[in-house]
Amino acid sequence: MNELEYNNKGKKNHPRVRIIPLGGLEHIGMNITCFEYEDSIIVVDCGLQFPDDDMLGVDLVIPDITYLRENQEKVKGFVITHGHEDHIGALAYVLQEVNAPIYATKLTMGIIEGKLKEHDMLATTKRRVIRHGQTIHLGSFRVEFIKTNHSIADATALAIYSPAGIIVHTGDFKIDFTPLFGEMIDLARFAELGRKGVLALMCDSTNAEKVGFTQSERTVGKKIRAIFDEHKNGRIIVATFASNVDRVQQIINIAHEHGRKVIVEGRSMVNIITVATELGYIQIPDNTLISIDQMRHYPDDQLVLITTGSQGETMAALSRMAAGSHRKVYIKPGDTVVFSSTPIPGNEKAVTNVINELYRRGAEVIFQDTHVSGHACQEEIKLIYALTKPKFAIPVHGEYKHLRAGAKIAATMGVEKDHIMVLKSGDVLSIGEDGAEVIDEVQHGVVMVDGLGVGDVGNIVLRDRQMLSRNGLLIVVLTLDRYTNQVLAGPDIISRGFVYVRESEDLMEDAKRIVEETVDRCLQGHITDWAKIKGAIRDSLGDYIWQQMHRNPMVLPVIMEV
Amino acid sequence: MNELEYNNKGKKNHPRVRIIPLGGLEHIGMNITCFEYEDSIIVVDCGLQFPDDDMLGVDLVIPDITYLRENQEKVKGFVITHGHEDHIGALAYVLQEVNAPIYATKLTMGIIEGKLKEHDMLATTKRRVIRHGQTIHLGSFRVEFIKTNHSIADATALAIYSPAGIIVHTGDFKIDFTPLFGEMIDLARFAELGRKGVLALMCDSTNAEKVGFTQSERTVGKKIRAIFDEHKNGRIIVATFASNVDRVQQIINIAHEHGRKVIVEGRSMVNIITVATELGYIQIPDNTLISIDQMRHYPDDQLVLITTGSQGETMAALSRMAAGSHRKVYIKPGDTVVFSSTPIPGNEKAVTNVINELYRRGAEVIFQDTHVSGHACQEEIKLIYALTKPKFAIPVHGEYKHLRAGAKIAATMGVEKDHIMVLKSGDVLSIGEDGAEVIDEVQHGVVMVDGLGVGDVGNIVLRDRQMLSRNGLLIVVLTLDRYTNQVLAGPDIISRGFVYVRESEDLMEDAKRIVEETVDRCLQGHITDWAKIKGAIRDSLGDYIWQQMHRNPMVLPVIMEV
Repeated sequence: MNELEYNNKGKKNHPRVRIIPLGGLEHIGMNITCFEYEDSIIVVDCGLQFPDDDMLGVDLVIPDITYLRENQEKVKGFVITHGHEDHIGALAYVLQEVNAPIYATKLTMGIIEGKLKEHDMLATTKRRVIRHGQTIHLGSFRVEFIKTNHSIADATALAIYSPAGIIVHTGDFKIDFTPLFGEMIDLARFAELGRKGVLALMCDSTNAEKVGFTQSERTVGKKIRAIFDEHKNGRIIVATFASNVDRVQQIINIAHEHGRKVIVEGRSMVNIITVATELGYIQIPDNTLISIDQMRHYPDDQLVLITTGSQGETMAALSRMAAGSHRKVYIKPGDTVVFSSTPIPGNEKAVTNVINELYRRGAEVIFQDTHVSGHACQEEIKLIYALTKPKFAIPVHGEYKHLRAGAKIAATMGVEKDHIMVLKSGDVLSIGEDGAEVIDEVQHGVVMVDGLGVGDVGNIVLRDRQMLSRNGLLIVVLTLDRYTNQVLAGPDIISRGFVYVRESEDLMEDAKRIVEETVDRCLQGHITDWAKIKGAIRDSLGDYIWQQMHRNPMVLPVIMEV
Repeated sequence: MNELEYNNKGKKNHPRVRIIPLGGLEHIGMNITCFEYEDSIIVVDCGLQFPDDDMLGVDLVIPDITYLRENQEKVKGFVITHGHEDHIGALAYVLQEVNAPIYATKLTMGIIEGKLKEHDMLATTKRRVIRHGQTIHLGSFRVEFIKTNHSIADATALAIYSPAGIIVHTGDFKIDFTPLFGEMIDLARFAELGRKGVLALMCDSTNAEKVGFTQSERTVGKKIRAIFDEHKNGRIIVATFASNVDRVQQIINIAHEHGRKVIVEGRSMVNIITVATELGYIQIPDNTLISIDQMRHYPDDQLVLITTGSQGETMAALSRMAAGSHRKVYIKPGDTVVFSSTPIPGNEKAVTNVINELYRRGAEVIFQDTHVSGHACQEEIKLIYALTKPKFAIPVHGEYKHLRAGAKIAATMGVEKDHIMVLKSGDVLSIGEDGAEVIDEVQHGVVMVDGLGVGDVGNIVLRDRQMLSRNGLLIVVLTLDRYTNQVLAGPDIISRGFVYVRESEDLMEDAKRIVEETVDRCLQGHITDWAKIKGAIRDSLGDYIWQQMHRNPMVLPVIMEV
């Protein structure tokens, strides 16, 4: 079916489809985009985002999906491009509000099922595994899965056939001409779509600032093999992203070639390798994998550990080894630790701390040239534009600066300037052969997850946490007689996170005196409005502390009446 | 005087000097090293460190100088290598406990005097400005100042002539064969010292992991000039390090060539440019500098702003411009913002946020290739080793991984393996012609400064701040009758940083009921030890909240008696 047929079926000469990103355009992460036509909505990806530094105590962040909830009868399904957290991590939360089938490739679905199982949602969620090349019908849309390369196996791009025309969404991708396992990206299919006529290309912009071409995963193997050749006498510990199953497969193969046994350590690493092995995405040679408890039966030069913690995450296995708090693995001279990863922005310091600790324990540490990106650089992005020749360009995935770099590439490749749409979350883009405009904005934003609470931590709570974290608090408690307005007990002052009280007795005595004077003044002035008394305490004590110490603790007066 | 003469003067055939770093070897920052011989101590540098992420609310960190305080009669002076915060920032605090004269080059002293003035300490501090090539006598030591290059003018290396031999301390340095202003590093003097015989080289290791040679400051000028040539139509805003006066001079010169007026914005930028101009380190062409209020009298293409904020610091001028909260400067399309800087590790995310904001306001942002490091890379470090030919190598400045890289270079350059000393803070290195050993450890560590409080925030306070920041707190207050043990008022529960109370009324009601039951149970069981009642409240309420929400707020029971 070509674009003309679609047009003929549309009500108008030029039907319009609505593209509504609910996340993924302000930060790296939380990718979720709706495609809407009349009574049909399909959702591409449903990811989480890791909390910003100022989201104190927040575990993870998911998109505000009010728009989907309000239109849930239209939602035909969630189409998932690959199994990374920023594309699947919000599914278990979102499905509780908007239940619709999930469509994904085999490995992606395997990883999703692991998450659904944790939330006890397997039975209530419809799932369909899709092969590359296959097309599914979802309401007014048809969606074709197209093979791509990425830092996780089984990633897919999508050709979304809509009444307004064909929209190509690359998902996260790179072009690997020499992939280690499986096929290279189906460039021919992108070319065929280009010949049919592509209305819009939504292209991964994560690396759009980077010139050139991302290196093949194969180059990492060469480097790791060289490290194995050079370090024959001790243990080798390789930290990498759990989800990069091809990377893990390479390390296992190289270990096997070198006659080493492999130990897999770290919860997410064990989980994903288990799923990937069950589904045939990892082949482990016989007698290669051993448990961490068997480790002591082998000499160091016959061991390889593959572990989580390549981002310096405090609780990950490698960080615990570096800190000396891992129960089974002690780092020692002779160990070689390889970071087969690059720090995600924001994690640089944590990674450096782990490297320093490993060095201090006598290990050799290798953290350069043992990783390649999973995202397309400028020349790869250009190639996709060259093949698909889209009428409109909608750069996706990344921060604003990445989207802008993606937009520049689109312009270089001949997309007309007013056909390049840099969207923001919540925008409703109406797009068709005759044009594209942002016509509306829907509710959108972030929902913070803290423990079991979803959305109960908001700005007020965060503001309090920030204030408490910077200067601590002073609680002032007193009991008043409700008839005589006499102070029956207190004022007592309790502090937390403010000063070490035992060394600041004078200060605390003075603070108490200030509060007593304030309360006396209020009561003598016949102020019986407790809110006013509390305000007076806050002011006088706050002023005093600022004057003495230039600090601003939260002052919390509590008045009890008897 | 050569090393042999020193030996003859020493008590033993091979006198030993003690080198005691009190900071600077675990982190980038807080550089301070003592050199001790009999009744003489000299202190090289006295810097601060910026707080780690987990030091919540802490403004800055200074070294624990207990050792100097206990030996203050020996302290002959503070010798300062250059005017960066990590080399001078703790002076105003340390001098309050250990008052000794300061020795520094002219610009360095100018910057130090600004700080002393803020602390009202100018009158009480002896200061002597030293020229490159000059030597000062300090007890058993002589110290010679040797010209180097760095990212601040007037940096110096030190040749410390001790009874045990000559110790060369590079300070922070690079080798700039073509400096823009002033001389290049005095390599000839390093060579002469090498010929005399150098006992130990203490060499900057900050860039010891980086291959090659750090580029000349001159290359930055070329790039900035090209940017001015390409962006003739709008304002140009350049963010850079305030202390890099040569960089600022270049920008002013290029602005002047292009017929643009210069506005300097940001407190530290104004401070340092004022000092540097007064002392002759910056020459501002007539009629070039204008105030920010005069800006509106000039068209955009005749304006350049030089500003702080190149590290994304929240309160710095550029960050406020990006956030739209600067009172005088509004970023708009046509503006070009140049980051003449590189993010210091840990600041990457903050810088990226500012870049995104600037792009959103329509500015062009240039943040690559407009900066060079101030630190020597591997080939430069090798050159210093080649010239000084030290018997011992003591890598300094940097984290452990940098020191280790510095040690590797020393080995490459022929220093014997057991003559390479990677120290840690507090180590007492005894060194002389006949050997070097760490013989002792003195008290050392970090002292946290929060507001006016120095050292009153310790681990307990920080642990409370961390706990409060992650989960907030619940305060439980009740008033008991001290004779009847009846509850007279409460329990009331107040929360901060925990949940949005209005939306969690049920939870708070249940929490109150749990506390009431717990208190009743205690009182009926005739438990009158309030510590026990408080413990029971903490346990029962904590358990309930964990079960309901998987969160761990701080629970703070307060019992008043009437």
